[in-house]
Amino acid sequence: MAAQSQAPAVLVVAGTHGNERNAPWLLQHWQRRPSALASSGMAIELVLGNPAAHQANLRYLERDLNRSFQPELLAGDGQPTCAEVERARELVARFGPQGERPCLVALDLHSTTSAMGNALVVYGRRPTDLALAAALQARLGLPIYLHEADPSQSGFLVECWPCGLVIEVGPVPQGLIQAPICRQTQLALEVSLALLAEIRSGDLKLPQRVVVHRHLGSLDLPRTPEGTPLACLHPLRQHRDWQPLRPGDPLFLDPSGGTLSYQPPAWLEDGLADGPVVPVFINEAAYGEKGIALSLTERLVWSVQPGWGDALKALAVQLAAAAERGAPL
Amino acid sequence: MAAQSQAPAVLVVAGTHGNERNAPWLLQHWQRRPSALASSGMAIELVLGNPAAHQANLRYLERDLNRSFQPELLAGDGQPTCAEVERARELVARFGPQGERPCLVALDLHSTTSAMGNALVVYGRRPTDLALAAALQARLGLPIYLHEADPSQSGFLVECWPCGLVIEVGPVPQGLIQAPICRQTQLALEVSLALLAEIRSGDLKLPQRVVVHRHLGSLDLPRTPEGTPLACLHPLRQHRDWQPLRPGDPLFLDPSGGTLSYQPPAWLEDGLADGPVVPVFINEAAYGEKGIALSLTERLVWSVQPGWGDALKALAVQLAAAAERGAPL
Repeated sequence: MAAQSQAPAVLVVAGTHGNERNAPWLLQHWQRRPSALASSGMAIELVLGNPAAHQANLRYLERDLNRSFQPELLAGDGQPTCAEVERARELVARFGPQGERPCLVALDLHSTTSAMGNALVVYGRRPTDLALAAALQARLGLPIYLHEADPSQSGFLVECWPCGLVIEVGPVPQGLIQAPICRQTQLALEVSLALLAEIRSGDLKLPQRVVVHRHLGSLDLPRTPEGTPLACLHPLRQHRDWQPLRPGDPLFLDPSGGTLSYQPPAWLEDGLADGPVVPVFINEAAYGEKGIALSLTERLVWSVQPGWGDALKALAVQLAAAAERGAPL
Repeated sequence: MAAQSQAPAVLVVAGTHGNERNAPWLLQHWQRRPSALASSGMAIELVLGNPAAHQANLRYLERDLNRSFQPELLAGDGQPTCAEVERARELVARFGPQGERPCLVALDLHSTTSAMGNALVVYGRRPTDLALAAALQARLGLPIYLHEADPSQSGFLVECWPCGLVIEVGPVPQGLIQAPICRQTQLALEVSLALLAEIRSGDLKLPQRVVVHRHLGSLDLPRTPEGTPLACLHPLRQHRDWQPLRPGDPLFLDPSGGTLSYQPPAWLEDGLADGPVVPVFINEAAYGEKGIALSLTERLVWSVQPGWGDALKALAVQLAAAAERGAPL
């Protein structure tokens, strides 16, 4: 089988968060039956992101693994650290681009309690990430959340690989496997692998345009000084990820039934305060502790840049070289 | 205010499971603003069931508090124990019928990832429980799950009070507050308190019939010998709590897309194997570790028994006596 004769090129991570159970369950299935994942000939490395947290059915043990890939944390050798930083270092040492089994692309499979559907998250504006996301959007219509410029949320796994995306599927409760979530996860991953094979062979045609939702910032619930929420998400906003939010729209509901309407926050950039913003990750269970009730984005239609195609060509050369190297011991 | 001049009569517990967040959030609201809960003049005691687990946002720390009210656990003084057994003893010592602030009725507010809607759970066939549940069903149409005769699941909180019900609302992910879940919880609690006030005054008229769903047993997912699930809930069964399941109906889906149909288990009682059973708690996230993918029930229409009314009259006498005693220091 082709995948066994090649060096790994694509790292597929499931269970970076231990209470997201759908992708890890698929991973076990693919490990038992490799033919169950149509990998389009790409050599893949299947990895459980945070085995200890998975075992405990917790998002993490000591800190969020998917906020632990900061260069300063990864580099700080000898200093006291924690389970997740150790695991981040281990993943980079084993599968990073200079690792024991070097991978060029990281696909990190997540699920969420938010109604994100089948979606992609891109961190920053690396041309290869944007090109791959644009191709996935052209093939499957997946919406893209471009996370950038948020110093309070950084250190994401995929940033440590030359090319990487998060595939985010929801809504699904934590700790629970649901068939449609698995189906969507598998579909997005299989098409990602097919596109990477097309990139490697030089056959991929990029679309002319891509729609991205650029991260602007996040809103928390209104809270008492002690941190108790004074309101919850308004039912007219729950499960309305990707749908425009306009000033005056119902946003929160206090427990007496009073509606709190959306008012653009002071930090919103000029020119965005009067028009609609597009919320994502609405009422994600794990984000309460981060002070995030929802994140606001700006919907942008971008022309695909010539530089993205150039970046893909460079990736194609690397993927082809990896395929020729064959598997290391 | 009436509630402050009386001894407590009704114990309202929220957060018996620490990752069920809706009722505890309401509880904080009611504590801040007692008028926000229409308590119909009943003196109530509002208690967070498992504060340590709530703080940690975990169902429990060491063992399920709502399986820790077995007489032998409660009685075993001096023996090594755990946080939840200690908490069970504390709740009984403080609010049990012979406690410091004796309560006669316990209403335990839960949520679930299953699509149970707004539902009642009754443990065993105590006449007062069945009478109160029948009255709630007549008023709000709530379905009733009669849990009994399951030695693997015992030690429920409400069993330690002379009368007690679980109000179970779902679906909602663990760790998450959703406005409709709160609304349903508050509605069921307010009507319960109104009915208890009617019971106390002798005004309550019981309906002639009640529909109960009698627990028969539970089914687990098919698993490998190591415990890995070989299939998940079939999407045609997910969120179909309370809807009949017939032999041959799709029940599980394996990750290759193969359907496993429902076949009546060998333990099913004679006469129930050929007809429909009614599943409840389908794909509840917390029940995976208990080996429960869904529970099967038999739908029964019962005539309300004269003994239930007699039990309510006895409860009315006790409630009236409690109201006259006034609040202890």
